[in-house]
Amino acid sequence: MSDTEALLERRYRVLGCHAPLFYDRPVRLVRGQGVWLYDDAGRAYLDVYNNVPCVGHCHPHVTDAIARQAATLNVHSRYLHDLVVSYAERLTATFGDPLNAVMFTCTGTEANELALRLARFHTGGRGVIVSDFSYHGNSELLSALTSCFETPEPFPSFARAVPIPDPARDRQGRSDEELADAYAEHVRAAVNSLQADGVQMAAILIDTFFANEGLPDRVPGYVEKAVEIVRQAGGLFICDEVQSGFARTGAAMWGHRLTSVTPDIVTLGKPMGNGHPLAGVITRRELVDKFGQVANYFNTFGANPVSAAAGLAVLDVIEREQLLLNSKRVGAYVREGLERLKNKHSLIANVRGQGLFFGIELAHSDANATPATAETKRLVNAMRERGILLSRIGRYDNILKMRPPLVFKTEHADQLLSTLDHALSEL
Amino acid sequence: MSDTEALLERRYRVLGCHAPLFYDRPVRLVRGQGVWLYDDAGRAYLDVYNNVPCVGHCHPHVTDAIARQAATLNVHSRYLHDLVVSYAERLTATFGDPLNAVMFTCTGTEANELALRLARFHTGGRGVIVSDFSYHGNSELLSALTSCFETPEPFPSFARAVPIPDPARDRQGRSDEELADAYAEHVRAAVNSLQADGVQMAAILIDTFFANEGLPDRVPGYVEKAVEIVRQAGGLFICDEVQSGFARTGAAMWGHRLTSVTPDIVTLGKPMGNGHPLAGVITRRELVDKFGQVANYFNTFGANPVSAAAGLAVLDVIEREQLLLNSKRVGAYVREGLERLKNKHSLIANVRGQGLFFGIELAHSDANATPATAETKRLVNAMRERGILLSRIGRYDNILKMRPPLVFKTEHADQLLSTLDHALSEL
Repeated sequence: MSDTEALLERRYRVLGCHAPLFYDRPVRLVRGQGVWLYDDAGRAYLDVYNNVPCVGHCHPHVTDAIARQAATLNVHSRYLHDLVVSYAERLTATFGDPLNAVMFTCTGTEANELALRLARFHTGGRGVIVSDFSYHGNSELLSALTSCFETPEPFPSFARAVPIPDPARDRQGRSDEELADAYAEHVRAAVNSLQADGVQMAAILIDTFFANEGLPDRVPGYVEKAVEIVRQAGGLFICDEVQSGFARTGAAMWGHRLTSVTPDIVTLGKPMGNGHPLAGVITRRELVDKFGQVANYFNTFGANPVSAAAGLAVLDVIEREQLLLNSKRVGAYVREGLERLKNKHSLIANVRGQGLFFGIELAHSDANATPATAETKRLVNAMRERGILLSRIGRYDNILKMRPPLVFKTEHADQLLSTLDHALSEL
Repeated sequence: MSDTEALLERRYRVLGCHAPLFYDRPVRLVRGQGVWLYDDAGRAYLDVYNNVPCVGHCHPHVTDAIARQAATLNVHSRYLHDLVVSYAERLTATFGDPLNAVMFTCTGTEANELALRLARFHTGGRGVIVSDFSYHGNSELLSALTSCFETPEPFPSFARAVPIPDPARDRQGRSDEELADAYAEHVRAAVNSLQADGVQMAAILIDTFFANEGLPDRVPGYVEKAVEIVRQAGGLFICDEVQSGFARTGAAMWGHRLTSVTPDIVTLGKPMGNGHPLAGVITRRELVDKFGQVANYFNTFGANPVSAAAGLAVLDVIEREQLLLNSKRVGAYVREGLERLKNKHSLIANVRGQGLFFGIELAHSDANATPATAETKRLVNAMRERGILLSRIGRYDNILKMRPPLVFKTEHADQLLSTLDHALSEL
């Protein structure tokens, strides 16, 4: 048994045989820097998957901030601490009014839990609308609401799941406005169905970038119409930016800026501390204050001084290294390259995403454009063997999920594109 | 406006006016070391409250481990990593069979959520029994189950809250066994009541040290009888060790060892990473594996390599510095001192707790032993002014909550005892 096989055996024994692992041959990582990860044999992998280390693996400005603050003071937030307040101010300033207050948590799950508590408290309703291919966290409530994979918890009677526009698959000659209207009708039907069951609306909870849904092209007006229907029924709009936030889309710091609607609540997570467990809820101060009168919310580790230092350092780097601009430029460069690959490889049905969150949909050239699910899996593993880490998403698991650290440059894009080209040729 | 008042104003504005703060005059902390915290004026405070920095504030072995690993690699656990497996093995070894597997999370809330999901999955039931003065987390489900303060969520119809034995208050001449039987009858009544409503048992979820309940003296046999009743009805025993674990009680590494019953699931949190957000669920591997077949549980930050490094370093220090023994010895020393204070100050109704988790109950000397709630609040603030940080708990908020870092020594105990003596004299 190899050393790695022995480690796998030990892992199964103590973490269980279903603790998830990527790739047919799991990668055993020992070191990371920028967009690079290194395994125990010293082999380098280009990281085209991980949005969590958003400013790059082990960015010294962030790791120094963590090391310095951890050695100085780490304590919960029921004592006054300057960094926590400074971070809260700096973070909310990137949103602007009316999103002027923050409640810190440690994970996206905790943020979405808190967002739903806030929405239910303020509306007095319990009804929730999610997309029919979504995931917002691993608590019992959020697992029940999960629609993109099976969970032991039944989908709740207080919730409805609606299909999200995917114009590349189902435009059928319709204009954007027709598509937006048609899909918004699903939201109206969901609201009506809940009301018919006596369930008052609390919130629509969506990621406006629809990452788990497979990065469909945006249909202008859809989110606005959907939110309007929910608001007319008394519900709030919770925008899950755990994936689309922090400059990921290249268009703006926050994914909801791709629409013209301002969320009532935004939830943040993964990239917020570049890997340090930090997350939060951004909303209007009045919502925080009214909830606070009765809810006594406290989160022991939430925005402790080390987390705040990590969060501040991440914002520093995004600004100093102009990572929003980089996300836009390199994202456009990658997309162009992917379009070229599409002209060459018939398996590529379309190119998706924007900024440093992009994908290609793999489908067969038959009348139904049958999803090339098995080929996509083979491609993900082939790319890993060729030293590039990525994954797949979407209803048919046939869309490459590529979401590299924001310090991804054109030379990395070139390596990705040429490796994809070869791997597709030899698939 | 002073600098601190200005900071408070800014804090209200961005974190909301109800974001909790300790003390009438909040402490503004800038540095910590061992059992000491320092404010912005350089004043030292003896920390007799914080169990999170269990091996002492900013212990260099832990902060070095965090700094080193953060600068080397921090990535989620879907790649193979040696430290995560080593930590899981080392941690479960402190439990021993049959508690041989772990699922990592970031917070105690996430751990208790996961524990309830596991229990409901395995039993097929939904019924939960908690104590009638408990708190297990801030998610919607756990907020609904909270019984020690008001939350916006109604107490669920699938749950029952049972009173916990508090012999110092309600022995009424009964033997331990009579008390245990009498209180276990509340658990039987809760099970019967749930079953009468068609609710099948999933779990009893308790902290066997009953910290939030005010550290009542242990009634031998009570937990064993309560768990037996729940198991006979098909439910599991979830032991919340977020407060009582990691050598806190001085008797054993884990609080449940104070009883003779082995939990089905143990939840861990606060002290696990000495302040780094790390928590988890310990249970039998078969429960993890069966759940894993259908539940696809994944936690992005849970036991990433930095968290694992922090967790391992905490276990190192607990062993090397013999903190379990220290907890036992210094705990006994403090308790003796508190008993002496009780003989001197009539306001002290009784002394509570064991190991480095102790309290005194303050009550008036009337026929009803009326809880001295206002005096306890004044005492907590007086101690803060005298440079000692502690808090209060219990149904009447009249029990001092003292839970210092495990490196608390007899000289610190002497300072605590003499300061308490003076503050009580001048109350």
